[in-house]
Amino acid sequence: MDTGQDEGARSREPRQERSRATRRRLLEAAAACLAERGVAGSTVAAVAERAGVSRGAAQHHFPTREALFTAALRHMSDTRMAELRRRIDELPAGADRTTAVVEMLVDAYSGPVFAGAVQLWAAAANDPRLRSHVIPLEDHVGRTAHRAAVELLGADESAPGVRETVQATLDLARGLGLANLLTDDEPRRRRIVARWAEILRRELGTG
Amino acid sequence: MDTGQDEGARSREPRQERSRATRRRLLEAAAACLAERGVAGSTVAAVAERAGVSRGAAQHHFPTREALFTAALRHMSDTRMAELRRRIDELPAGADRTTAVVEMLVDAYSGPVFAGAVQLWAAAANDPRLRSHVIPLEDHVGRTAHRAAVELLGADESAPGVRETVQATLDLARGLGLANLLTDDEPRRRRIVARWAEILRRELGTG
Repeated sequence: MDTGQDEGARSREPRQERSRATRRRLLEAAAACLAERGVAGSTVAAVAERAGVSRGAAQHHFPTREALFTAALRHMSDTRMAELRRRIDELPAGADRTTAVVEMLVDAYSGPVFAGAVQLWAAAANDPRLRSHVIPLEDHVGRTAHRAAVELLGADESAPGVRETVQATLDLARGLGLANLLTDDEPRRRRIVARWAEILRRELGTG
Repeated sequence: MDTGQDEGARSREPRQERSRATRRRLLEAAAACLAERGVAGSTVAAVAERAGVSRGAAQHHFPTREALFTAALRHMSDTRMAELRRRIDELPAGADRTTAVVEMLVDAYSGPVFAGAVQLWAAAANDPRLRSHVIPLEDHVGRTAHRAAVELLGADESAPGVRETVQATLDLARGLGLANLLTDDEPRRRRIVARWAEILRRELGTG
């Protein structure tokens, strides 16, 4: 069947698509591998095998482990935050909205992506080369999460103290994520989320 | 010079004292080693060398790395919390007290002991044997910090929500500590501490 496209364009497109799919598979495998095995156990070869991709193809996309790990966490975190922002229309109105948003944010810091980030942070603390990759990643993730939190909470950052209150919400979420790393901290976390949402509503005047 | 003590008691006492001093040196070296080199780089031999103690003596005190690491963090954390509690009489009165206490607590999660704890958590996430040692340690540290926070803040936990507010303060401190692990986050941390102290004063009715 001739679609009228020239040969070159036809073969280029599926190739680009395949390349994008390979890249995405590598990023997802790298994030899962990090969370399960830590940095020391996550070689490019181990990630390639997990992704079902040849080692050569993996190295074509990510020449170094540092590039692979930071791209993986950036991708997973961006995907997660974009998902949260898409769910803005499903949020309940009034007082329940703040609770729902705090739950969403805290949950975002309690899954395998956060567990992988802790592995990367721990390794970067003693590895200057990895650290130089992780610092800009952390900065990017922090800004993205902050923008999402402001939008979801409907916070007015021109009011004094609001910016710090939103940041405290994300730092609290990070601390709760760390507490959840080794044991299931769900019941305690729920009580703190409920309490924090109550405080936030008063502080932000949102319910 | 004869002090009137019998020979046995005289030699036993310095021996016990020496043993305690050796143990303390090992604990301090282990905590510092963990923070700087992570779990993989902190063998019992490396810690013994740093402490200026023979490997045999180190193994007599701590037969396994797990025992050494968890004892080290327990010791450092207990020492730190006891220090904070001793400083209770130096705290300013009124509204400034809450700010001073939040600063003390947040600082306790921003130094080398916390950096060592992150290394231990990260390693324990992928190591069931280490995890079984770290979970009770985390529980102990959490309770000790909670008791210290209640006392220092002068919080009345019989009032509804106060317990969760105190716990949120410690989770926030942990999240801020994590943000401070790779970069000096001091200016942002100070703004959040000031804001959180303001919220706490209202929530706890302490200023």
